[in-house]
Amino acid sequence: MSKGWHGKLLRVDLSAGTCNVEALNEEWAKDYIGGRGLASKYLVEEVPADTDALSADNKLIMATGPLTGTYGAANGRYMVVTKSPLTGTIASSNSGGYFPSELRYAGYDMIIFEGASPHPVYLQIHNDKVQLVAALHIWGKPTQEAEDAILAEFHGDAKVACIGPAGEKQVLFANIMNDKHRAAGRSGVGAVMGSKNLKAVAVRGTGGVKVADPRAYRDAAMETYGMLRANPVTGEGLGALGTPVLVNIINQAGSLPTRNSQTGTFEGAEAISGETLASTYLKRNKSCMGCFIGCGRVTKLSGSRYEGDGEGPEYETLWSLGATCGVDDLAAVTKANYICNEYGLDTITAGSTVACAMELFEKGLIKEEEIGMPLKFGDADAMVKMIELTAKNEGFGAKLAQGSYRLAESYGAPELSMTSKKLEFPAYDGRGLQGMALQYATSNRGACHVRGYLVSPEVLGLPEKIDPQATEGKATWAKIFQDFTAVVDSSGVCLFTTFALGVPQFAKFCTTATGEPYTDEKILEVGDRIYNLERVFNLKSGVDPSQDTLPKRLLKEPLSEGPYKGAVAKLSEMLPEYYEVRGWSTEGIPTDEKLQTLGLA
Amino acid sequence: MSKGWHGKLLRVDLSAGTCNVEALNEEWAKDYIGGRGLASKYLVEEVPADTDALSADNKLIMATGPLTGTYGAANGRYMVVTKSPLTGTIASSNSGGYFPSELRYAGYDMIIFEGASPHPVYLQIHNDKVQLVAALHIWGKPTQEAEDAILAEFHGDAKVACIGPAGEKQVLFANIMNDKHRAAGRSGVGAVMGSKNLKAVAVRGTGGVKVADPRAYRDAAMETYGMLRANPVTGEGLGALGTPVLVNIINQAGSLPTRNSQTGTFEGAEAISGETLASTYLKRNKSCMGCFIGCGRVTKLSGSRYEGDGEGPEYETLWSLGATCGVDDLAAVTKANYICNEYGLDTITAGSTVACAMELFEKGLIKEEEIGMPLKFGDADAMVKMIELTAKNEGFGAKLAQGSYRLAESYGAPELSMTSKKLEFPAYDGRGLQGMALQYATSNRGACHVRGYLVSPEVLGLPEKIDPQATEGKATWAKIFQDFTAVVDSSGVCLFTTFALGVPQFAKFCTTATGEPYTDEKILEVGDRIYNLERVFNLKSGVDPSQDTLPKRLLKEPLSEGPYKGAVAKLSEMLPEYYEVRGWSTEGIPTDEKLQTLGLA
Repeated sequence: MSKGWHGKLLRVDLSAGTCNVEALNEEWAKDYIGGRGLASKYLVEEVPADTDALSADNKLIMATGPLTGTYGAANGRYMVVTKSPLTGTIASSNSGGYFPSELRYAGYDMIIFEGASPHPVYLQIHNDKVQLVAALHIWGKPTQEAEDAILAEFHGDAKVACIGPAGEKQVLFANIMNDKHRAAGRSGVGAVMGSKNLKAVAVRGTGGVKVADPRAYRDAAMETYGMLRANPVTGEGLGALGTPVLVNIINQAGSLPTRNSQTGTFEGAEAISGETLASTYLKRNKSCMGCFIGCGRVTKLSGSRYEGDGEGPEYETLWSLGATCGVDDLAAVTKANYICNEYGLDTITAGSTVACAMELFEKGLIKEEEIGMPLKFGDADAMVKMIELTAKNEGFGAKLAQGSYRLAESYGAPELSMTSKKLEFPAYDGRGLQGMALQYATSNRGACHVRGYLVSPEVLGLPEKIDPQATEGKATWAKIFQDFTAVVDSSGVCLFTTFALGVPQFAKFCTTATGEPYTDEKILEVGDRIYNLERVFNLKSGVDPSQDTLPKRLLKEPLSEGPYKGAVAKLSEMLPEYYEVRGWSTEGIPTDEKLQTLGLA
Repeated sequence: MSKGWHGKLLRVDLSAGTCNVEALNEEWAKDYIGGRGLASKYLVEEVPADTDALSADNKLIMATGPLTGTYGAANGRYMVVTKSPLTGTIASSNSGGYFPSELRYAGYDMIIFEGASPHPVYLQIHNDKVQLVAALHIWGKPTQEAEDAILAEFHGDAKVACIGPAGEKQVLFANIMNDKHRAAGRSGVGAVMGSKNLKAVAVRGTGGVKVADPRAYRDAAMETYGMLRANPVTGEGLGALGTPVLVNIINQAGSLPTRNSQTGTFEGAEAISGETLASTYLKRNKSCMGCFIGCGRVTKLSGSRYEGDGEGPEYETLWSLGATCGVDDLAAVTKANYICNEYGLDTITAGSTVACAMELFEKGLIKEEEIGMPLKFGDADAMVKMIELTAKNEGFGAKLAQGSYRLAESYGAPELSMTSKKLEFPAYDGRGLQGMALQYATSNRGACHVRGYLVSPEVLGLPEKIDPQATEGKATWAKIFQDFTAVVDSSGVCLFTTFALGVPQFAKFCTTATGEPYTDEKILEVGDRIYNLERVFNLKSGVDPSQDTLPKRLLKEPLSEGPYKGAVAKLSEMLPEYYEVRGWSTEGIPTDEKLQTLGLA
């Protein structure tokens, strides 16, 4: 097989308890590059779309890209691909840290977990030595404690990805933590791992990765280093304030969803901003493998009524546990973030679901007796308590553990769930940012910011400034961003590099690493192929185009204040154009011709 | 702690899935040396005597002695101590090979397994790295295949002890195999391991062992080397023909129990003798760690209707699968031996139980329909088939899997089980060898040859020749041999060395290795202490002195031919003297005074 890929995948049959190496499908690798794309191809080929996501028939794929572990900046990512128990769609969650590169150094491009172990186990990989270790003694342990326990018994150093108690208990939005503080966060990939009785993967790799054309690869990497250094976001902003820099920016743009998206401006934004974090609990920044950006936030709670230390909160978390719950208590938000990381919960869905419950409570649809306490917007302690109960799947937390859609629906008010395809919105209001509204409605994994970050042109002016309220042309922007993102997610490179890098840089990266000729056009074709592959899986799984929509609130309730006061999400102005740009039918179904062009029919 | 002992034991709680190191009890170590003695002390202290042997409350202890892994000849033994499911007594089974020394090199004197895993696991030890590995993928595998599978996934080289399918299925006389061909054979220690869902222990140790006085230890070892070299059994016989040399010797002594002990002379002895084995299937001899004796038999079946290769048969097996089943087909005996090793079955009880079934069949107590075939003495193929069914716990084999006592009792003829305390006799007829008759009746684990090998003086003339038919003085011989054997089993040294070595050599070994002053007198006192400790446990477990007896056949049916024609076992002439020599009451109960002297009251 060409260099760039090892050409080896590890297949772990958890039902049988066996671990076997097999050759990577070379044609698929070329067509889908790796990571999200290639793993999705394997999932689509091996898992029927109507599979119950929490059954042994679902599979969980951990996939690196051909650039994972190479020395280009921010090349330390992997993807977890599975069918989501939260959304019923294909899911792919990305994470960085050191685990992904270590997996590559052990000699594998991906791991496919299939079946389900009859008892808790974890996987140990030490280069070609692979075994399932009985995990009874770490089952139930929080993620960081579990990682320490695994490292203590591992032969030599290792990198660990694991689930926490939330994943074990199949909380529908449980995540997979790696290197203690990095998360493959969204879509409930941790619940699938829990349903398989798989607690963790610990890997030690002492081999290397090879690129096809080392000299050309070095030139490409040097060029991108310069671009990343020179870019204001990657060269400065993310290192200094991290993603939390966005709190004030997005609030000023009137697009910080507040109190379950009832408004887009939070009066308490300054108190939970990146600037406030930097002057209170922030200790230092931190990088993933080989990355100079260092957007990670190492923090410690001190001098507040909450205790603890760890990493975060990130921007999304400051919003989900803060603004959308009406909470302006940074210590409480940070504490709830720590709980999410320790128990293995997606902070976005966790906070949004609490926000949804708060609105249901304030509207009288949930009674105090049922929760066991009042649950009003702005009640920081109640928010922390709800996060804890959710993480433990206990008491009222067991209802929250189903996510906001199932929660709101069970109280007869599904319209109060701020979701698309049952996945909770991230921290950008689609009424303020029309491109994001379209992106939420059409994202294959449900509402998502990292499937086409139109915030970049709509707010930050990268690669160029576009009017956030405009609808014209947003379909094309969405498609290009979605397709390009799919390639980035398949390469093993961090999405944050795309503030500075574009398609040409990824074409060079992929070509020099693999030896396959990826032109700019080809790169976008791969992205288009991945996007359509995912779409077809979703359609087969019953997630039909009627779900390419947004909650009534975004479509009908205008923003009440801020620069975009009076705005609603004008989805109907953009969706037909989007279908057209995608080459789909007016009903949103990929045409045979389109699929044939992409090699999908 | 003094050198000689590491002072560390590994406690594995299989219910909780935890592995912890704790300090060895220093006082107990001095009083019981190690191995059989020390492990029995732990078992007696930690397991109530009335515990169900196959319940999670029983414990399984793997224990080395302070000499295990030292460079003295034949110092590579360990003991497995538990409560036996076959006999209800305390059990301790000895094995050699390389696993025991490796365990010492990893830094542990013993492992205590407690509780029961809810699912199959195996233990991996790499010095201080200890973990339980999920064993679903090797559960059900024969021992040698399981060992290969474990070695393939182990980090580096390792030594393995494991159970086969017989242990997994809790056949009451399942053994624990190590290094593929060595067995902790008797009393069903493998069934206890199976009841705990523990498939194997794999160990890699790269540390050493230290003796207290290296110079004096070297002198002791050099002296014993010389003695072992000069001795006809250890210096010549065992290496040349192995234990099978005994077939013709014991048959000529009229003491080879034949057809379920109906006679003591087997007309087919020559065909299954060590001499015949040497001229047919024997390929070479083989040693345990650091031993020059090399009594192991590497064999290969070729040119017969049975196929296979492996090790053995040993003398006991040639008898149990041969003479006592009336089988004179060496290929069939060898094949059945291989099956026992692969499935993890004690060959002595396995063959004896088939012999018992043959007599029950010939007497019309078991019908052909029940077995599925005729089962006559001398039918080699039927014997092999029965061993296979027993090993698999299938069909009529499920009845055989309970051992001869339960089998015969279920057909209303318990007197046809050739057992003491429900453990099958080994290959020496107690009517011919009176000392052995007494030893069988009083052995703490039931009828046994390696708890006081009076064959040595009664037949081989070592250390001096005594009259096998005499009863006078046999009580003292039995006590001394039993006590000395208990010390040998506690030291980590092979019992075979005692053909050449006596108490003084072991006193020197133990003193120079541990730094504790073990005089000759003290050595025998330790043995006496161990013997009484075991006895008290048995009494508490309900194995009362009425079980210090022999089957009616040995007591009442005289040998019909051979040099001891007309002889019966004159147990009643020896037992009262034995109780007296032991310092027990006339009812066979250790007196308070005796126990106080030994520190047991």
